[in-house]
Amino acid sequence: MRDFAAELEHRKQAGLYRTRRQISGPQQPALVSDGRALLSFCSNDYLGMASRPELSRAAAESMASNGVGGAASHLICGHHDAHHQLEQRLAEFTGRSAALFFSTGYMANMGVISALAGRGDTIFSDRLNHASIIDGCILSRARVRRYPHGDVKALEELLSSTDGHKLVVTDGVFSMDGDVAPLAELARLCRVYDALLVVDDAHGLGVLGPEGRGSVAELGLSETDVPVLIGTLGKAVGTSGAFVAGPRLLIDYLVQKARTYIYTTAMPPAIASATSTSLDLIRREQHRRDHLDGLIAAFRKGASELGYELMPSRTPIQPIMVGDNWTALALSQALEQRGLLVTAIRPPTVPEGEARLRVTLSAAHTQADLRQLLNGLAECRQILDAREKQAV
Amino acid sequence: MRDFAAELEHRKQAGLYRTRRQISGPQQPALVSDGRALLSFCSNDYLGMASRPELSRAAAESMASNGVGGAASHLICGHHDAHHQLEQRLAEFTGRSAALFFSTGYMANMGVISALAGRGDTIFSDRLNHASIIDGCILSRARVRRYPHGDVKALEELLSSTDGHKLVVTDGVFSMDGDVAPLAELARLCRVYDALLVVDDAHGLGVLGPEGRGSVAELGLSETDVPVLIGTLGKAVGTSGAFVAGPRLLIDYLVQKARTYIYTTAMPPAIASATSTSLDLIRREQHRRDHLDGLIAAFRKGASELGYELMPSRTPIQPIMVGDNWTALALSQALEQRGLLVTAIRPPTVPEGEARLRVTLSAAHTQADLRQLLNGLAECRQILDAREKQAV
Ligand SMILES: Cc1ncc(COP(=O)(O)O)c(C=O)c1O
Ligand SMILES: Cc1ncc(COP(=O)(O)O)c(C=O)c1O
Repeated sequence: MRDFAAELEHRKQAGLYRTRRQISGPQQPALVSDGRALLSFCSNDYLGMASRPELSRAAAESMASNGVGGAASHLICGHHDAHHQLEQRLAEFTGRSAALFFSTGYMANMGVISALAGRGDTIFSDRLNHASIIDGCILSRARVRRYPHGDVKALEELLSSTDGHKLVVTDGVFSMDGDVAPLAELARLCRVYDALLVVDDAHGLGVLGPEGRGSVAELGLSETDVPVLIGTLGKAVGTSGAFVAGPRLLIDYLVQKARTYIYTTAMPPAIASATSTSLDLIRREQHRRDHLDGLIAAFRKGASELGYELMPSRTPIQPIMVGDNWTALALSQALEQRGLLVTAIRPPTVPEGEARLRVTLSAAHTQADLRQLLNGLAECRQILDAREKQAV
Repeated sequence: MRDFAAELEHRKQAGLYRTRRQISGPQQPALVSDGRALLSFCSNDYLGMASRPELSRAAAESMASNGVGGAASHLICGHHDAHHQLEQRLAEFTGRSAALFFSTGYMANMGVISALAGRGDTIFSDRLNHASIIDGCILSRARVRRYPHGDVKALEELLSSTDGHKLVVTDGVFSMDGDVAPLAELARLCRVYDALLVVDDAHGLGVLGPEGRGSVAELGLSETDVPVLIGTLGKAVGTSGAFVAGPRLLIDYLVQKARTYIYTTAMPPAIASATSTSLDLIRREQHRRDHLDGLIAAFRKGASELGYELMPSRTPIQPIMVGDNWTALALSQALEQRGLLVTAIRPPTVPEGEARLRVTLSAAHTQADLRQLLNGLAECRQILDAREKQAV
C-alpha cells in the first residue's frame, strides 16, 4: 500500500492540505460554520436559487408521489416523466433541439467527451479547463493537445496542422478565473477546420445572456456554431445535476454511447422537478441578474481601489490574486475572523504560484453585505503588504 | 464530425439500439409506463425503500430548512451537517473507521481507483466488473490486468508475477450476473501478495449480511481484510449517491486526492438526510430481507421448472440467460404484452452472445406478483423454444 501518511504530511508542509468545514442551514448569503455565522462569498449559488422555497416545494411534491430514488438507470426503467419534462425545458432554455440530463457535470463532461472522441482522434483543450474535462479527455483515449488559455491563434496553428476527427473543448466561463472563453472565434475556427465544438457553460448558465441562457446565447451562437453545449445545474440553477444540449441526432447517439449516462442510477425525479421550477424562475427574474451585475461592478471598483489584483472577469467569479499558498490561507483566515467566508484556492486547482481567494458574488447578497466584504478586505490589506515586504 | 446516423443505424440492425421508456409515479412494484400499468421486475430498489414515505419526509424537512442544492463543492463550503451525519452512519453501518460520501457510484469508483493507483502500479480487475470500475482503471493510467470472472487461481498467478504497487478490484455482487465475488479468498490473496483490495458492494449493501450490512459483512471481513469498501445508495438504500468506507487515513487521503470528490458540487443535503433515515430502517427491518429471500427461492424454483436457464445467484439479481439479442428483445416484449416489465440486457453491457433478461426481485413484491411473473414466463416459454428450433 502507498504511504498515505507521508503524502499527507508533505501536503501539510506545502500549505496544500485541505480541510472540510461543516456548515448548517441554507447557503446564502450567511451560513453557519462550526456553530458560527459567517457571511459567505464562496458558493456557486449565483442567483440565490438554492434556498428558494419554490424549489423545495416542487421537490417535496414530487417525492410525495414518486418517492426519492430513481431506482434504476435511464435505459432500464429509471427514466421518469420529471426527467423527460426537464430535458424538454433545457432544450427550450438553451435554444437547442434536444437535451440529455446527467447526474453531475463531472459525469456529463466525462461521458460526452469520451463518447465523441476516441483513439486516433484529437482533442484540443484549453489549459484552464475544468478537471472533469481533463478526465473526459483521458478516458476518451484520444490524443490531447492543450492550448494556452483562451489563445485562439495558438489553437488555430494546432488545428491547421492536425488531421482526422477533431474536438475543441472549453469552459464557457472559467471556473477559477471568471473570464469568458472567446466563443465566437472558437466557433469560427471549428467551422473552418471541421472540428466539433464542445462548450461547458457551467458558470455562465443562469447568469449571462438573455433570460440567463448563458455565454453561448449571449453571443447568439446557434446549434450549428456550438453543436455540443454542456451545462450544470448545481450552480446558478441551485439544484444538482447537469445536461448536454444539441442536435437530436447527437443526443440519440449519446443515449447509446455515453457510459456515464448509461451505467448509472437515474437522479431522483424530485431533483428534476425542482430544476424545472428553477429554470422557469430564472428566465422570468431578470432583476436578479441586474442586481448581481451591480454587485460585481461595485466589488471590482472597491477591491481595485484597495489595491487588490483582480482578473479580467465580468462574472460573479472574482478571484483576488495572491500567489503564494500560505499568504492566501492567511488572508482567508483573517477574513474569517471578521465573519467573512472567502475560500483560498491553491494548486493543483490553480497553477503553481497562482493561489488566490475566489470571491463569488450572488444575487442573494445585498449592497450592505458587499460593503462588509470590502471593509474586511480593507482591514486585511496589510497582511498582503507585510508578506510582500517579507518577500523582498 | 463522426457519422452519428450511420452508427445508430448499425446498432439498430444488430438489435443493439436502446430506447428509453418514460415512467410515471413510484417505481415499486407496479409502475406506469407510457400510460400503461406494468408490474416491474427491473429496478434495483431491492428493499422497496425508494418510495417509503419516511424517506420523502426526511428529505422534505431537510429542504425546507436547508434549501435544495449543495451550492459548492465539499472542500469549498458545500459540506453540510447532513453529509457529515450520513458519513458517520455509513462508517457505523459498514463497521469501518470512516466513510466519504460521493455523488454517484460511478464517481466513487472513478475517484477512488484513480486516487489509489497511478502510472507504474498494476490493477487487477475481474472481467465482469462494472463500467465505472473499468473507467476508473483507465483514468488511473495504471497497468490493468483483467482476470477471468471470479477466478482466484488465475488472479494468484498474475499477482505472484507482478511487482510494485498492486490493487485488486471487484464487484461484491456482480450487477448483471447476481453472483457474489469470492471475497474471503480475494482478501487472503491480497494479504499474501501485499495488494490493496477494493470491493464495490453496490448490489450487496442492504440485501446481504447481518442487518443488511453487505457481502463483506456477511463473511465477517474486517477493515484489514477489505480496506477499501465502496457502496452505492441508489439501489437497495433507495436514494442516490455512494460512498467509500475504510481506515481514517485512507479517507483523509481521498479527501485530498479523489478528483471526483474534490471537483464537483456537493449533493443536496436532503438526499443525505433521506439516506440516513433509510439506513436506520434497513438495519431494523430484517423481515424485508427474509421476505425477499423467500421470493428469490420461489422464483428460482419456478423458473427452473419452466426450463429457463438461470445463473448461480442467491441475490435479487436473477438473470434468465437467452443468448441472442433479438430473442431477448422478443421475450421482453412478450412479457410486456402481459403487463410484466423485465428488461433485456444486451452487449456491450454483457459479453457478446450472452443477452439475457435481468429479473430483479424486491421486498416490495408479493408472492402473488411473483406468481404473475412465473405465469407470464410459462406463457412465453414457447418463444424461446421456437427460436431454438429455428436456430437448429
Ligand atoms: C466548468 C465546470 N464544469 C463542470 C463542473 C462539474 O459539475 P458538477 O459540480 O455538477 O459535477 C464544474 C464544477 O463543479 C465546473 O466548474
Ligand atoms: C457494481 C456497480 N457499481 C457502481 C454502479 C454505479 O453506481 P451509481 O448508479 O450510483 O452511479 C453500479 C450501477 O449503477 C453498479 O452496478
